[in-house]
Amino acid sequence: MKFSVHVLGSGSALPTVKRGPSAQVVNLHGKPMLVDCGEGTQLRLRQNKIKMQQITHLFISHLHGDHFFGLVGLISTLHLLGRTKPMYVYAPEGLEKVIREQFKLSSTYLQFELNFVVLKKNQMDLLIDEENYHVYSFPVEHSIPTWGFLFKEKPLRVKLKKSFIESHRPDVGWIKRIIDGEDYVNEAGERFLNTDITHPPREAVSYAYCSDTRYAESIIEYIKGATLLYHEASFANDLRSQAKARFHSTAGQAAMIAQKAAVKQLMIGHFSARYKKDITCLLLEAQTVFENTIAAEDGKCVVLAD
Amino acid sequence: MKFSVHVLGSGSALPTVKRGPSAQVVNLHGKPMLVDCGEGTQLRLRQNKIKMQQITHLFISHLHGDHFFGLVGLISTLHLLGRTKPMYVYAPEGLEKVIREQFKLSSTYLQFELNFVVLKKNQMDLLIDEENYHVYSFPVEHSIPTWGFLFKEKPLRVKLKKSFIESHRPDVGWIKRIIDGEDYVNEAGERFLNTDITHPPREAVSYAYCSDTRYAESIIEYIKGATLLYHEASFANDLRSQAKARFHSTAGQAAMIAQKAAVKQLMIGHFSARYKKDITCLLLEAQTVFENTIAAEDGKCVVLAD
Repeated sequence: MKFSVHVLGSGSALPTVKRGPSAQVVNLHGKPMLVDCGEGTQLRLRQNKIKMQQITHLFISHLHGDHFFGLVGLISTLHLLGRTKPMYVYAPEGLEKVIREQFKLSSTYLQFELNFVVLKKNQMDLLIDEENYHVYSFPVEHSIPTWGFLFKEKPLRVKLKKSFIESHRPDVGWIKRIIDGEDYVNEAGERFLNTDITHPPREAVSYAYCSDTRYAESIIEYIKGATLLYHEASFANDLRSQAKARFHSTAGQAAMIAQKAAVKQLMIGHFSARYKKDITCLLLEAQTVFENTIAAEDGKCVVLAD
Repeated sequence: MKFSVHVLGSGSALPTVKRGPSAQVVNLHGKPMLVDCGEGTQLRLRQNKIKMQQITHLFISHLHGDHFFGLVGLISTLHLLGRTKPMYVYAPEGLEKVIREQFKLSSTYLQFELNFVVLKKNQMDLLIDEENYHVYSFPVEHSIPTWGFLFKEKPLRVKLKKSFIESHRPDVGWIKRIIDGEDYVNEAGERFLNTDITHPPREAVSYAYCSDTRYAESIIEYIKGATLLYHEASFANDLRSQAKARFHSTAGQAAMIAQKAAVKQLMIGHFSARYKKDITCLLLEAQTVFENTIAAEDGKCVVLAD
């Protein structure tokens, strides 16, 4: 039941040698999901030894190039490597056409299903409902239609204590009932309290991804209480008006959102190339408002649950 | 009058960590020209400290993704960096539409002229005629329409000897006539032979780029006598039939073309990812046929004239 976030690109529209454009892998219970796919993402997947053929779900937040220019190359490589497994791309309207046109240009006929799912405007939307988790999209506020994504575990179940299993040897039917919360009653009619015969589950964790967006309290309801929030912090507070004009956030604003949404941890990223030498000022600015803030780095992996 | 070739990507359709997809910068008399633009080219331009805003001419050999997927990102970056200088892209038909559509998706309005020139099929074509050089395109043989490019200096002119200038102080008119090959006659009617008062020019050099193509003797006429020939060598001779089926060449075939075209030096590249650990077998195979062969490496710079 592992849940981790692997940053592949922490830069913004102008990639630098140190920071690539946006891309992250969310490892959700053994399923790697790609969030955004800036130019060079396939190379960074290789560099970070992430098995790209295992990716089946891909999320594109919006259609600025630093979030999708790497998609066509990644798909092309998966195809050349002999992929047959379907791929699902959750993306704004319009992306499918331009991706398919590029394959048409090169007379490339994909040997796997490439399914595009168009993101819905103006509402929180359940994209994936799996046994152990949900994935949602929700609107953020940028210069063109843009979405955030929420990856959220469903409440985890209790685990039977080894000592109980060894002494009572419950059958499969009973195991299921105990996991679902029932007490155990043996053939002699003795009752064993569920809390006595099980280990409580760890808390369900969640990850919210918000890039790109200006400071928008409208997103708080979607990300409330998240274990980890990734929020863009393109600028420092002294460039607040520039941030607003360009529909981006400052590090201080990202921290205010984290605080108001009562998330557990904040990771800032999508740093403007002007901070290419050092982003310490952005990190400190955020930490002043919301102490548990970390800064995204290309290659950084944050484990939410092991 | 510098002329050099800077390899940015020496890999083929499947980029590896060591070899990026096709891209080269031809430095022609102070003008950097980009030939092919696979994904990640803008990053490699940065890594190789090539000033990307100085590029005004760009050549795309064909529309397989490993030769053009980096173009949209590069243009986007030039735009974001405030470019106003026009750009000329010589490319197959169809590329312009798909590039412009991607900018439309992101509501990006370029602030510089982006001019596409469609390459002509079935003939050698003069693309650029500058004071000191020509650039031509010519057809090669691949699975989709594909072009090679020839960068060719015009014959260089003599240089006046310093001693002659100091002793005779010829005026601008005379200097021009001497450079054009005339003897000098002073006011007293004395004649000075052009060969005595000038240094002979260095030989004009030329660079031919052929990627991707199967073994095709039809290209020999276009590249005859080139100072440096870049020829793809995707496979080794033992995979000759695979090379032919995929419209690619072996290293041995590249060397045969070099030999038959009597070029001075051959650089092989576009190596299949199957040789990612070592391309020595390809280099040796080519050198057996054409000794003066070198292998392309990402970051390698070959100087044709200083």
